[in-house]
Amino acid sequence: VAVTANNGNTSKPNIIIMLMDDMGWGDLGVFGNPAMETPNLDRMAAEGMIFPNFYTANPLCSPSRAALLTGRLPIRNGFYTSNAHARNAYTPQYIVEGISNTEILLPKMLHKAGYVSKIVGKWHLGHRASFLPLKHGFHEWFGSPNCHFGPFNDLDRPNIPVYDGAQMVGRYYEEFPIDKKTGESNLTQLYLQHALEFINRQAVTGTPFFLYWAPDATHAPVYASRRFLGTSQRGIYGDAVRELDQAVGALLERLHSLDLHSNSLVFFTSDNGAALISGPKGGSNGPFLCGKETTFEGGMREPAIAWWPSHIPPGRVNHQLATVMDLFTTSLVLAGVTPPSSTPLDGIDLTPALLHTRTWDRCICAFVCLDGCFILMTRNSWQEFHQGINFCPAQEVHGVTTHNQTDHTQHPILFHLGRDPGEKYPIR
Amino acid sequence: VAVTANNGNTSKPNIIIMLMDDMGWGDLGVFGNPAMETPNLDRMAAEGMIFPNFYTANPLCSPSRAALLTGRLPIRNGFYTSNAHARNAYTPQYIVEGISNTEILLPKMLHKAGYVSKIVGKWHLGHRASFLPLKHGFHEWFGSPNCHFGPFNDLDRPNIPVYDGAQMVGRYYEEFPIDKKTGESNLTQLYLQHALEFINRQAVTGTPFFLYWAPDATHAPVYASRRFLGTSQRGIYGDAVRELDQAVGALLERLHSLDLHSNSLVFFTSDNGAALISGPKGGSNGPFLCGKETTFEGGMREPAIAWWPSHIPPGRVNHQLATVMDLFTTSLVLAGVTPPSSTPLDGIDLTPALLHTRTWDRCICAFVCLDGCFILMTRNSWQEFHQGINFCPAQEVHGVTTHNQTDHTQHPILFHLGRDPGEKYPIR
Ligand SMILES: [Ca+2]
Ligand SMILES: [Ca+2]
Repeated sequence: VAVTANNGNTSKPNIIIMLMDDMGWGDLGVFGNPAMETPNLDRMAAEGMIFPNFYTANPLCSPSRAALLTGRLPIRNGFYTSNAHARNAYTPQYIVEGISNTEILLPKMLHKAGYVSKIVGKWHLGHRASFLPLKHGFHEWFGSPNCHFGPFNDLDRPNIPVYDGAQMVGRYYEEFPIDKKTGESNLTQLYLQHALEFINRQAVTGTPFFLYWAPDATHAPVYASRRFLGTSQRGIYGDAVRELDQAVGALLERLHSLDLHSNSLVFFTSDNGAALISGPKGGSNGPFLCGKETTFEGGMREPAIAWWPSHIPPGRVNHQLATVMDLFTTSLVLAGVTPPSSTPLDGIDLTPALLHTRTWDRCICAFVCLDGCFILMTRNSWQEFHQGINFCPAQEVHGVTTHNQTDHTQHPILFHLGRDPGEKYPIR
Repeated sequence: VAVTANNGNTSKPNIIIMLMDDMGWGDLGVFGNPAMETPNLDRMAAEGMIFPNFYTANPLCSPSRAALLTGRLPIRNGFYTSNAHARNAYTPQYIVEGISNTEILLPKMLHKAGYVSKIVGKWHLGHRASFLPLKHGFHEWFGSPNCHFGPFNDLDRPNIPVYDGAQMVGRYYEEFPIDKKTGESNLTQLYLQHALEFINRQAVTGTPFFLYWAPDATHAPVYASRRFLGTSQRGIYGDAVRELDQAVGALLERLHSLDLHSNSLVFFTSDNGAALISGPKGGSNGPFLCGKETTFEGGMREPAIAWWPSHIPPGRVNHQLATVMDLFTTSLVLAGVTPPSSTPLDGIDLTPALLHTRTWDRCICAFVCLDGCFILMTRNSWQEFHQGINFCPAQEVHGVTTHNQTDHTQHPILFHLGRDPGEKYPIR
């Protein structure tokens, strides 16, 4: 299924997916953050195309990442809340499950077209040996199977490991320090260097590559390198955003200097909305309601920028409704790989939007398909609510937000997202 | 006090102030509106400089406009709430007061440098004969002394008049229809045509001009021309924004086609934040708290774009704290007019920010000067609250927002606006 583009050769472009962690729609200047401290991302948007209606598949790290890499909804790929302990919805150390061997991940599919794949950063699809990235199609990895929680100091719960390929090379808070008091850590720089080094090597070999760049500096506990600490109006969270923004700039600049820019699709987004329970130490979801761990717009809608000079027309806003799962299908189409026929896919091909600025009607269903397109994106059900936690501090809307897990299946709350993007005025 | 610029002749540029009505910080694509339907304003921003920290002087029409045109705080220029009826804070028909003869307005000052001045749109500084624009320095006027409230049908309270110069040419809902059912009115097109016609004439004479373009389509009842109705994702409010956006594009295009662009400073902003009491029929204040009629950020912070090709460097974000009153002083500096020495001014010269992208520390005081710079911008006092009205629907923050007028002078509520632009986490 090779795509035919009007504007030049799109055959087997390099694919770079930059997936941020808990970064909100409202964290970028181009998406209206008042601090406007993301000049590199804003330039990326000016040179590329932004998708203001881009969604994750679930407002939590693991299911969102599983959806991206499988092109399938969490309820299909196994990363969903199936019991009170939400055993498949996230992967702390005491959870022993992970990505199923029956799932076919993006790097494995792209390899059919000769792609070499690397993941840099957070994996979060299982920490046991059989679940790790190199067992699921990635050729290279630098990063960690989990979040950088810690420090831990008991043998039953050691610090989270960091891998280089199949080799464990240390642990967070030990060989890879994070100062929780000052917020200092050089991890984003390490993730940048490993990505640059991979791009350099691929430029030499000329092999098409897939780089999945997944730094986690904006996930609590938020961190930044020393030279970024204290540089943002927003505090430590803003410092982390500024460092990531600069890293994005460095990566795009490297593509330019290696003359790979016109043959590399770069897509920037986030795995879920900003965590409002972190208060001013977390990110911003702009005008949207609530955030991480809720299925309101603040939890589900993500910043999204596509960049591919001479293929994606510059400076465009595309209102196409799209999801992280589409990145799977779109990547396959661009690589000329036939999507797997054995399992149903939920992602669709976005190349008409990317290359020709098209939009079309579409129904996105978070879990089950009902009538109407936006219902399931906005309903407050199957949330990963812990009993009694308020994930919407200072954003409570009477009759809409709750502190408890509530099943709204029979009585979904409907909003007109065009007129009421903040979900404050239910129309039913 | 002629300014010396690095980048060419800035002597007596034309000055165009585009003042929107009840438009919020979050209504423009470039300020993060999810609909992103303002391509002309976004391009104006890309070619110019945006000021994310730009404030009005009061979250209501009349005092804000009085502050802009006098360069002085409402408490100085007389447009403030002095009693229970707020007689000087706004100017409905039964209010007989207006702008004082002792105030010296911007057009009168600019005339010293040979400028010809026109106001197109809403005046709102008094509707009796002695208060009208031509009595206070403007040479021309097309528009109305008041809001387009109505229709009224009693002799004591006739419909609001529309003027062309000193001549009343009709009334809203009569000669100048507004269909409150469909939202249709061609007023924005009339305001556009009168502005274009003025610019055309000034291009011929070569006289420097001041155009104060003050359309009010985004003030309730919101209206748009027929061809814009139903074109926005946002409903009638978005239709009005789209029409204004297109008018801005037409005005900038006209400056280009008449070769006036490099000699015209255009400044776009709004008189106060979006009115949240209008719900989905009103605008958006983005991530900020509350809106019109409150002194929270949502009421006071305004979208602001400065445009002056070959003088203002393109694509810049300037974090300078600035206010509508600065437009008075800045205009005088650019025109080479010495500001009046007889009365204290609250506006300052922004040319170092505009022409050289500079920023500097500054204390802005809404009413009285206390220690600290941001305190008075954020405190919830002297609000034009009517008893028991909630101006912050679905945005209530415990201990912060109130439904009643509350004097916080002795115990101001403080926020760190960098880390908490939404004013949800008081630090005191
Ligand atoms: Ca996450
Ligand atoms: Ca107003």
